[in-house]
Amino acid sequence: MRKLAVVAFGGNALLRSGQRGTYEEQLANVEQTCECLCNLIKRGYNIVIGHGNGPQVGNVMLQHEAGAKNFGIPSMPMDYCVAETQGSIAYLIEIALRNMFAKNDIYKDVVTIVTQVAVNKMDPKFQNPTKPVGPYYTKEETDRLHNETGAIYREDPKGNGWRKVVASPKPKRINNIKIIKQLVRAGNVVVTVGGGGIPVVEECDYVRGVEAVIDKDLASALCAIQIEADEFYILTDVPKVYINFRKENEQALDTMTIDEAKRYLEEGQFAEGSMAPKVRAGIMFLENGGKECIITEAGQLENPYCGTRIVRG
Amino acid sequence: MRKLAVVAFGGNALLRSGQRGTYEEQLANVEQTCECLCNLIKRGYNIVIGHGNGPQVGNVMLQHEAGAKNFGIPSMPMDYCVAETQGSIAYLIEIALRNMFAKNDIYKDVVTIVTQVAVNKMDPKFQNPTKPVGPYYTKEETDRLHNETGAIYREDPKGNGWRKVVASPKPKRINNIKIIKQLVRAGNVVVTVGGGGIPVVEECDYVRGVEAVIDKDLASALCAIQIEADEFYILTDVPKVYINFRKENEQALDTMTIDEAKRYLEEGQFAEGSMAPKVRAGIMFLENGGKECIITEAGQLENPYCGTRIVRG
Repeated sequence: MRKLAVVAFGGNALLRSGQRGTYEEQLANVEQTCECLCNLIKRGYNIVIGHGNGPQVGNVMLQHEAGAKNFGIPSMPMDYCVAETQGSIAYLIEIALRNMFAKNDIYKDVVTIVTQVAVNKMDPKFQNPTKPVGPYYTKEETDRLHNETGAIYREDPKGNGWRKVVASPKPKRINNIKIIKQLVRAGNVVVTVGGGGIPVVEECDYVRGVEAVIDKDLASALCAIQIEADEFYILTDVPKVYINFRKENEQALDTMTIDEAKRYLEEGQFAEGSMAPKVRAGIMFLENGGKECIITEAGQLENPYCGTRIVRG
Repeated sequence: MRKLAVVAFGGNALLRSGQRGTYEEQLANVEQTCECLCNLIKRGYNIVIGHGNGPQVGNVMLQHEAGAKNFGIPSMPMDYCVAETQGSIAYLIEIALRNMFAKNDIYKDVVTIVTQVAVNKMDPKFQNPTKPVGPYYTKEETDRLHNETGAIYREDPKGNGWRKVVASPKPKRINNIKIIKQLVRAGNVVVTVGGGGIPVVEECDYVRGVEAVIDKDLASALCAIQIEADEFYILTDVPKVYINFRKENEQALDTMTIDEAKRYLEEGQFAEGSMAPKVRAGIMFLENGGKECIITEAGQLENPYCGTRIVRG
């Protein structure tokens, strides 16, 4: 039986900082990433792709804001915006994969599942939302918006204005996980948990969307656990994880055990909002039955010994 | 074995004319439609849902336009916009269905496939695009846009300005159709071909998106043919199909044969852009192995003899 891997990559694999993010740019970027994924498939893996949506959902929120101002179109909440990006990003991933498969003589089908991820409505993060999203406003605008919608706004530390903050609760359950497992076990590449999943909560038999952002690495880790993946790949823009990063004694790691990873996290070796959440997602995967988590950049995937491996130890 | 039905409904089942189209309005509207679909399921059907996106994709195009103007975010082509609406509309359908299933003690799962539909790049419709989409412009603006992008613009007959026109080619192939068939045969409700599908063409092993709008009734009919559905339901805002509509001798039809349907079409009994494309989609289904096409409104679905049935005769 082929080995099973979940591969997570960020929305910036499509829309890179410094680019305007045109259709052609995003497609060219994702084709590069998808060509690298062909190496994993050639090495014998069935794969599930979990992707981020940071730059794209940011644009969608700005487009809603502008659409409301210029045309009176009602702006939509976060869950709806995430759903929009699941459709658009997965579409670009799908055509990029199909084209790279054709080029590399790989005969696999690609299927995208629009995916809701349930979070706990009592998650303590809802009491203290910290994740800034969407446009910048003046203090006066946010006072009005807060009164209208109840949303919470915080001042940007860099002085750009005020922004809405939403919670980043833990993913608890991935909808359609059984179907995802069936489809990937049958040899299809499955794209899911886009942007960390559409955040929903359940209350007495009733499902509703919530304004929240689920970390895409944690959502992908949960997916990897639930489909019993052998390996979990987290793609980033460096070939390995470093300790003493950008210092004289910087050291690239080939492997780290769960205990070592936890110690490095405690020491503050990994930046929050960057490497730290990736390492935490890797630990979560290993502590729930996973064998190996590999953190690396897409270009390294042709090498079976690439990246930094987190292992049980 | 349970009977298999494809049900098509328009994007206006969510965003009704006269409403602003807020999140709450769209969700309330689609919950009504989904509660009606519970009747079909209780009557023993497995169902696939094909939905339109007219009002929603119109809003997305306006939001892109406004986002480009206010924030410099690149506008995206039609295929990307359709993909966005596949994510957002399917998400609302999914939560509405899950909630109506819980209320009606139906134990089924719902799964949405982001769906590309291939069209023929030699389709004659590409030579004569007629479907108006997106914002209205002045003549000067469209001249500039035409020079920049090659897109074609026509003057609105009602004098509102100039609008981009795109082709409405025939759907030729639905991606992932085998997976759709497997999932619905296994008892899942499958949401697919949103907005008629994301239009793509294939050229020498390379897939690319195209600016086009595929008729959602034709795409749903093709889906119904390919999954070998027993019945094809097209939901609209009238309980039956009429001849001599709104005249003294108006007559609601209980059934019509393919030949009768073709004759009525020739006589111009059915309005283009309204009932005519629905009847044509029904004929296409029947001429390719389907048993019955039922055109009716959602509220009638509890009655097994509802609507107008097109039959082989």
